Amino acid sequence: MVATAVCLPQSLVALDWFGTAAFAFSGTLTAARQDMGVIGALFLATITALGGGTIRDLLLGEGGQAFWIKEVMYFRVVLLTSVLTLLAWPGLAKFFNLEDSAWPFCFADAMGLAAFTICGARTGLDSGVGIEGASLSGLLSACGGGIMRDVITNEPPRALHANRSAYATPALIGALIYVVLREGGVQENVALWTGFVVGLGMRIVAFSLNIAPLKARLRESEWESVVTDLVKR
Amino acid sequence: MVATAVCLPQSLVALDWFGTAAFAFSGTLTAARQDMGVIGALFLATITALGGGTIRDLLLGEGGQAFWIKEVMYFRVVLLTSVLTLLAWPGLAKFFNLEDSAWPFCFADAMGLAAFTICGARTGLDSGVGIEGASLSGLLSACGGGIMRDVITNEPPRALHANRSAYATPALIGALIYVVLREGGVQENVALWTGFVVGLGMRIVAFSLNIAPLKARLRESEWESVVTDLVKR
Amino acid sequence: MVATAVCLPQSLVALDWFGTAAFAFSGTLTAARQDMGVIGALFLATITALGGGTIRDLLLGEGGQAFWIKEVMYFRVVLLTSVLTLLAWPGLAKFFNLEDSAWPFCFADAMGLAAFTICGARTGLDSGVGIEGASLSGLLSACGGGIMRDVITNEPPRALHANRSAYATPALIGALIYVVLREGGVQENVALWTGFVVGLGMRIVAFSLNIAPLKARLRESEWESVVTDLVKR
Repeated sequence: MVATAVCLPQSLVALDWFGTAAFAFSGTLTAARQDMGVIGALFLATITALGGGTIRDLLLGEGGQAFWIKEVMYFRVVLLTSVLTLLAWPGLAKFFNLEDSAWPFCFADAMGLAAFTICGARTGLDSGVGIEGASLSGLLSACGGGIMRDVITNEPPRALHANRSAYATPALIGALIYVVLREGGVQENVALWTGFVVGLGMRIVAFSLNIAPLKARLRESEWESVVTDLVKR
Repeated sequence: MVATAVCLPQSLVALDWFGTAAFAFSGTLTAARQDMGVIGALFLATITALGGGTIRDLLLGEGGQAFWIKEVMYFRVVLLTSVLTLLAWPGLAKFFNLEDSAWPFCFADAMGLAAFTICGARTGLDSGVGIEGASLSGLLSACGGGIMRDVITNEPPRALHANRSAYATPALIGALIYVVLREGGVQENVALWTGFVVGLGMRIVAFSLNIAPLKARLRESEWESVVTDLVKR
Repeated sequence: MVATAVCLPQSLVALDWFGTAAFAFSGTLTAARQDMGVIGALFLATITALGGGTIRDLLLGEGGQAFWIKEVMYFRVVLLTSVLTLLAWPGLAKFFNLEDSAWPFCFADAMGLAAFTICGARTGLDSGVGIEGASLSGLLSACGGGIMRDVITNEPPRALHANRSAYATPALIGALIYVVLREGGVQENVALWTGFVVGLGMRIVAFSLNIAPLKARLRESEWESVVTDLVKR
């Protein structure tokens, strides 16, 4: 883990921290909307920012303590972000003139998504799980925390649904590109930034133009009744 | 894990694969009903088919990578089933004349339930967790993925509720019979198939005749108010 | 784990068992209210009573089997409590004249909360995770199972919300006091009981006087629209 962090380009490490803060921010906002308490908000911020990577490590059998307990700075970034969001953010946002639009927040979230995707896919490759496993590892690192946040707040998981702009698709494609390039012998740095830029770009296009992902659809409507019947029994 | 798979009768291994596909199918149908995207459907299929076994292995302390990352064929069966369900299934079903009734699907699901139950209970016994632990291990392997599917889609967990035909009960009884027979010195193959057939048979009877499980009920209705009070505080 | 249990004062170990039973009782009541089956009730009782400690151990990288599979008495206490609750409790409660008020149940739950908090924080300290990690470990042991119970039954997680009496706050403060005292060189027994009594006392005051926790609130209402916009995209 430490070895991985050392080998990662400094700039990607910085983006990983940035993503942690962006996701903690989103968890805190959600908690406030749901009338949670302050401790509930810290809890939800922690799960949103660190939950995806934690599940990834459990599935990869990394063993030992969760990465954010070993490197406690991750946990501290979450706590700090969450407390700042609750206390100081509206003022800061006004100072930097950020309050007019959601664009900066969607952009920050997209940066976090792309960074978590590449870092997660890299952890997968380093664990020797092959192309499928490493792509899934990237997807899970990027979307797992948000899915847990939505499940805990009884919302339909935003990353999985097709009624909003594409979220999981940019992550999966960014991860796939990085993994395929690196397994194909392309230099680490090139593979990494290509995957990052594609993932980030696709997500920005998706939320700017409100492009939905491909919908899961059964082709014939008479199936509806069979499905209903199957699930009702 | 590999050793276990080698020792299992080939026919039960085949049923384990079959169950993986049946559960991936059910996860994909659920995702389509919920307006998820294609990636959301693949994700939900993976959790439905492989989630129960993954939690079982975490609780048993198996360590290392999740079984379906180590033996990546499980993951591939899920992906293939899910993609086929979305693309080709209605046509195939029409070809095989399956579209008239939900019976074939309930039957396939019951086969998966019984197979996962026995394989899970066996993994528990091999981990040396005794009769209670191994029975729970079978129950969790069979029902855990479906419970996660329902929690993620904000449905009441189908396996736990008493308003539909019995689902967890056949699994638990099948697991118990296998575990008790094997611990009682009965030959592995006999114990295994007895548990499988009893679990499968009970589930088929349950959904054919719509038999609900024993309901959890507090005996006296005046308790309702105490419970409400306790939970409201 | 065994070593820990041996070193804990006998009285705290007894409280840990008591808490296990109290939480299993709460899980069983919830299951009955939700029309679950008997097996669903046993399942929910298990998750409520043992889920928090299980997640804690996974995050701390304890490895090996879940603590309640290793020390199977925990699991047996849950099963016994759950079965007794379903079968005999209304009668017993009438015999002991307990049915007039929810106070005894809130008190029992508070004892469990405080005991789980201190035992969890202690496990954290023994794993060498420092003040933040050990406090979180206490909080998670105490509240994690209840959060999982609520998520599975599609309820807003009671421990995280600010619309009922404070629940997570007493746990966190009890854990913090114990951890800070012990790291500050105070004798184990003193630190332990101080944390326990403060946590228990705060929770009793909270539910007796219906004191809500500090609410997570964004300071300016114009933010609502930004948040809505961010989440809608």
